[in-house]
Amino acid sequence: MNNDIQLRRIAVQKLLAEAGGDACLISTGIHIYYLTGRIFTGYLYLPAEGSPVYFVRRPVDYSGEHTVFIRKPEDIPPVIKERNMHLPETLFMEEDQISYGEYLRLKQAFNPAYTGNASAVLRKARMIKTPWEIEQFRSSAAKHAAAYSEIPSVFGKGMTDITFQIEIERIMRRHGSLGIFRVNGRNMDIFMGSVLTGNNAAKPSPFDFALGGAGIHPAIPIGASGETIREGNVVMVDMAGNFTAYLSDMTRVFAYGKPKEEVYRAHQLSIDMHNRLMNEVKPGTGCAEIFAWSVQMAADAGFAAGFMGTTQQAKFVGHGVGIEINEMPVLTPRSKDVLLPGMVFAYEPKFVLRENGAAGIENTYLVTNSGIEKLTVFEENIIDLI
Amino acid sequence: MNNDIQLRRIAVQKLLAEAGGDACLISTGIHIYYLTGRIFTGYLYLPAEGSPVYFVRRPVDYSGEHTVFIRKPEDIPPVIKERNMHLPETLFMEEDQISYGEYLRLKQAFNPAYTGNASAVLRKARMIKTPWEIEQFRSSAAKHAAAYSEIPSVFGKGMTDITFQIEIERIMRRHGSLGIFRVNGRNMDIFMGSVLTGNNAAKPSPFDFALGGAGIHPAIPIGASGETIREGNVVMVDMAGNFTAYLSDMTRVFAYGKPKEEVYRAHQLSIDMHNRLMNEVKPGTGCAEIFAWSVQMAADAGFAAGFMGTTQQAKFVGHGVGIEINEMPVLTPRSKDVLLPGMVFAYEPKFVLRENGAAGIENTYLVTNSGIEKLTVFEENIIDLI
Repeated sequence: MNNDIQLRRIAVQKLLAEAGGDACLISTGIHIYYLTGRIFTGYLYLPAEGSPVYFVRRPVDYSGEHTVFIRKPEDIPPVIKERNMHLPETLFMEEDQISYGEYLRLKQAFNPAYTGNASAVLRKARMIKTPWEIEQFRSSAAKHAAAYSEIPSVFGKGMTDITFQIEIERIMRRHGSLGIFRVNGRNMDIFMGSVLTGNNAAKPSPFDFALGGAGIHPAIPIGASGETIREGNVVMVDMAGNFTAYLSDMTRVFAYGKPKEEVYRAHQLSIDMHNRLMNEVKPGTGCAEIFAWSVQMAADAGFAAGFMGTTQQAKFVGHGVGIEINEMPVLTPRSKDVLLPGMVFAYEPKFVLRENGAAGIENTYLVTNSGIEKLTVFEENIIDLI
Repeated sequence: MNNDIQLRRIAVQKLLAEAGGDACLISTGIHIYYLTGRIFTGYLYLPAEGSPVYFVRRPVDYSGEHTVFIRKPEDIPPVIKERNMHLPETLFMEEDQISYGEYLRLKQAFNPAYTGNASAVLRKARMIKTPWEIEQFRSSAAKHAAAYSEIPSVFGKGMTDITFQIEIERIMRRHGSLGIFRVNGRNMDIFMGSVLTGNNAAKPSPFDFALGGAGIHPAIPIGASGETIREGNVVMVDMAGNFTAYLSDMTRVFAYGKPKEEVYRAHQLSIDMHNRLMNEVKPGTGCAEIFAWSVQMAADAGFAAGFMGTTQQAKFVGHGVGIEINEMPVLTPRSKDVLLPGMVFAYEPKFVLRENGAAGIENTYLVTNSGIEKLTVFEENIIDLI
């Protein structure tokens, strides 16, 4: 763990130096966790060369080397000077995460000649996962699979999507789900994941997830909506695998009774796409390339209209995962990113099938030196509920 | 509902005009919900006088008057000009919520002569709740009480805090909890609420909640930690009452077996404080005043050391609630705010009792024209689990 933190820190320092930064000041819990393995409220000051200093406000019992307790960010520069460290000429801050107000305050406290965007540096560093991080994904994925295997046991005839989801949430929690499901970006409120069935699967949401759903209240307009799970329909379960800080993303489809043949065909098409991914993708494969052949396969099979939604179709077929569910790279038509060893991404070709619900699976993959490895190993065919 | 939205909008417009703003551009889901009763991804453009325009990116099926679909924020100013509305000389944006990067982009798109902070305007407007908002609290509080009444039924000997919490979460969800629990500010990740027992109740967290707890994983260092609920201990349950968009905040304490007399004394002291609040507080009461006499009552009874924590004591005894759990006003020693009719706040004098857990209750109150009204009506004494 400590060696692994070192690896991550060095990766950030290298990218920071390349971007022309003398130091970065990290304020967000996610990035503090990434760089220390713990969370505190305060600031992590990381120079491009040398050791970081942890400026901690809370908890009061935080302990560890390089720790200085402070009350406010204005306390930081005097400490840096006292330690005979140079105040940075170019300071990087998390421009995409911290508020305008906080940014101004930090900038005023340091008064650097130049500033840069630490969010971009961290985003790039976080794309390539370290060995310890990869083990975290493996741990999440194994628990994720164990939890999903219990799903049919909690289904009952006459259940609504939300009643079913509540029982699945309990299973996830009992297997160790941390509950919290971190998403990058504002306005992406979602609770633990999504369970979609019937007409609700086609309902567009305000959010940029693969599929939508109306939700049970206007304040959280996403996912299950109280729709009864009808015989002959499928239920798509896409709960976040947050059993460690590193999320596995896995979608499976469950059937109540015997859905139409079209549902099975669409589902098999998604499995075929995953098989093609497993066979073809390797370091150097372009993210846009995967998007292109996925859309083409959907069109060739006559499923273009329901691919990744109906009236509102997602403009991606997959995305990096990590401490947040939507990291880099993203498998979009115009992405210039290529897959590299150490990247972990979810691939989720899904089909909305009008009143029958949605079909298709999602797996999380690790890019290895020679290809990709499936992390979310679990039954992929449609699973009978009764 | 529509009249009520109008009330909220007029309140914001009045405060915006007073602050010198010609218009505000709202981007966050919380504020869009506050001003429209729905959530979309996009921007709400609200001039200080006249009608708002809803610039919607998603969902694609959003409908309603004053709606314009856009792809990006740069599309907004041309539409405003086309409609013969003036572009604002002074534009207010949500400086405390949107990122530095987003702020710069929006500012560049509008290029206003002056800017101001819409976050401050909204914070002030949201302090005074409208009739429809108050009904939302009543609805949340009633379901909250109904859910809490089922808590003893899911307790079992030998349970850990987290196992118990999972069953309580299920009860909350089955009563209609939306799951999501909105908090103002970065780095305040918490899942549905907190269940504290034994030594874990004293554990400081990185977050600025009333009490802490170690949590079950370093990535979410708050709340239940896997501690076994021992006979003779109490369990403090503080789950968010998010049954509508407006949160009721209510803490109750449950006993397994017969806790020490000290636990009952501390708990009664908290109830006494609530009774004093009910008797004394009225419009015009200072928030700092409530803090001062609460601390004094704790000290007089010999409970100063465990009041609001032990090694890390919270510097507040209550806080406004609304769409977020931590709204204005805050009951702190230095607050200059006074309570006004229409404010809704939680009061939570709590005591950490070393290895026995924590005692005390939390209620949500509405400030009326003559005093305060308790919204979270439910048994206040320590409730036996078995």
